[in-house]
Amino acid sequence: MAHPPTPISPPLKDELDIVIPTIRNLDFLEMWRPFFQPYHLIIVQDGDPTKTIRVPDGFDYELYNRNDINRILGPKASCISFKDSACRCFGFLVSKKKYVFTIDDDCFVAKDPTGKEINALEQHIKNLLMPATPFFFNTLYDPFREGADFVRGYPFSFREGVPTAISHGLWLNIPDYDAPTQLVKPLERNTRYVDAVMTVPKGTLFPMCGMNLAFNKELIGPAMYFGLMGDGQPIGRYDDMWAGWCSKVICDHLSLGVKTGLPYIWHSKASNPFVNLKKEYKGIYWQEEIIPFFQSVVLPRECTTVQKCYLELAKQVKEKLGPVDPYFQKLGDAMVTWIEAWEELTAPPQANDQPTKTPIKEEPSPKPK
Amino acid sequence: MAHPPTPISPPLKDELDIVIPTIRNLDFLEMWRPFFQPYHLIIVQDGDPTKTIRVPDGFDYELYNRNDINRILGPKASCISFKDSACRCFGFLVSKKKYVFTIDDDCFVAKDPTGKEINALEQHIKNLLMPATPFFFNTLYDPFREGADFVRGYPFSFREGVPTAISHGLWLNIPDYDAPTQLVKPLERNTRYVDAVMTVPKGTLFPMCGMNLAFNKELIGPAMYFGLMGDGQPIGRYDDMWAGWCSKVICDHLSLGVKTGLPYIWHSKASNPFVNLKKEYKGIYWQEEIIPFFQSVVLPRECTTVQKCYLELAKQVKEKLGPVDPYFQKLGDAMVTWIEAWEELTAPPQANDQPTKTPIKEEPSPKPK
Repeated sequence: MAHPPTPISPPLKDELDIVIPTIRNLDFLEMWRPFFQPYHLIIVQDGDPTKTIRVPDGFDYELYNRNDINRILGPKASCISFKDSACRCFGFLVSKKKYVFTIDDDCFVAKDPTGKEINALEQHIKNLLMPATPFFFNTLYDPFREGADFVRGYPFSFREGVPTAISHGLWLNIPDYDAPTQLVKPLERNTRYVDAVMTVPKGTLFPMCGMNLAFNKELIGPAMYFGLMGDGQPIGRYDDMWAGWCSKVICDHLSLGVKTGLPYIWHSKASNPFVNLKKEYKGIYWQEEIIPFFQSVVLPRECTTVQKCYLELAKQVKEKLGPVDPYFQKLGDAMVTWIEAWEELTAPPQANDQPTKTPIKEEPSPKPK
Repeated sequence: MAHPPTPISPPLKDELDIVIPTIRNLDFLEMWRPFFQPYHLIIVQDGDPTKTIRVPDGFDYELYNRNDINRILGPKASCISFKDSACRCFGFLVSKKKYVFTIDDDCFVAKDPTGKEINALEQHIKNLLMPATPFFFNTLYDPFREGADFVRGYPFSFREGVPTAISHGLWLNIPDYDAPTQLVKPLERNTRYVDAVMTVPKGTLFPMCGMNLAFNKELIGPAMYFGLMGDGQPIGRYDDMWAGWCSKVICDHLSLGVKTGLPYIWHSKASNPFVNLKKEYKGIYWQEEIIPFFQSVVLPRECTTVQKCYLELAKQVKEKLGPVDPYFQKLGDAMVTWIEAWEELTAPPQANDQPTKTPIKEEPSPKPK
């Protein structure tokens, strides 16, 4: 008996949201249309909430501006940064899906060496759905990829791998450099397409960039807090780094995997290195103390969930980094607020909820136009 | 004033030996002639010492067979394996150079994606002469490569890097699989050229393959012992793995770097998986105890040289792995013998040497032909 052909649905169509922080019209979506249009977008409008952000026709989206964030989170809105792409994590909070892909609005579709346009989202989904291998290095890179495997000497008991929590993609054209490197090498472009995905080994920190990033919200969502940056804060451009350090130590503790490599996006425009230097300079010297802290942090055995891990981390941040600068006291408090907001917005409704607890309304602003 | 053009000398021409273990005529060198001919070769003939190994004309080489090994090392020859490519480490012992490149005789010149023949040795030399970055992961791979750098968020205090001790190259065509994987995937070929070199992070073990490998003898030489394999031993095909585990934990302890990735060679022929299974099967289950041992090994602060580290490791191998199988007692003893041989053969002649200490003669067999 002949079966009708099964229609091919985009992978994880109903299980993934695309989160985009922006201050401008989202014309960049035109180029992504073939890949993104089937998915739901969550747009986090930064800066002036009275400004109208134009979204190309045909996309399914919800848009939140600062007024929405304040309305939905109330006093807890203090943990969401303003005038900094760190505001993107508000999108993670309101997403109802299992997976999140987040991308900057100056990132376009890159081409692989054969000239084919790269479906970045599809590669992230592959990365997230296949296991990771953090306990031992595989010299032929991702052992689960077609045409590859574990090499001789790879312990068999590690070959099952662990669930992948994070997929970190890379950038062709403008590399993600800090301000000093931008200043020293203004013309450097990344033209090297490295055809590999790999697991960042357990115990190793990496600089996680938020430009082209996907994660499993159920596995690691509560650790994807982008910190206090931008308006009223002494630091910027460390939002994704902060989330990367926190989420990596928690992934290590909970035996979850973090992958980096493919997919590439085309990063179109270098940000202003002089502006960046002003945002970064405190981070540049603070990180010399932050990194040793994260390299040596130990989470107790009782921390069996991401939330518990994150609250423990918040406590240790205040204790150990507080002496570096009062900013870290504030950041530690904001980490706790973030978890409170996370639990309120993502908790399934309970029949015996205390009546004093006002349910949070998450309706976004009406779509413009 | 015009200067005469400076003649270009092959890099490290007088500071590097190429070590080749073999049981057959070295016709494979023909293909490597443009790259290897300027260098000195050390050929370690395995198996029947009465057999004549033919070396193509024009190569500068010394050849050692089992009789030479026995004559030069005396009773200490017991630490050099027989009928196993592990015998290659005898070549490391007698080399007088700072750098060693070792390659199997079934490895040919590979081509990069543009069709250009890859000078594997030149890439290894680049890897060894540039620093490594074991303390933090750089998402754009080797930051010292042209067109790349450290990305945003990479701590500045780590950017100097550390000296590179080991450069581990990869293989196109026949991948380095264990016997079970060979049996399951007899037709799998590695066709993916990954254009990257990376540092294996501190604290992470990797499966080091001896097929296409270079190292700095001054930095890590004494740890490059390939163990007891082959004739009279219960195990084979774990020689390079053993050297990899030992050298990696010592590199981590001494803050030295290990790189993997480029260069590729073309691995021509899969070895017999049935024969391999027989050699490997004990290793396959032993490694489930060996890996946790190496992952948790701690070398005391007093171990400030590779030799001291290696002797400490030998002691711990006997203590901790001895209970797994008496083989590890024997191996621990052989590790000590290896260091004794290393110190005798590489120690600079001392004016006040004890007269009872017979100087070891290292003259190789006369070149055949």
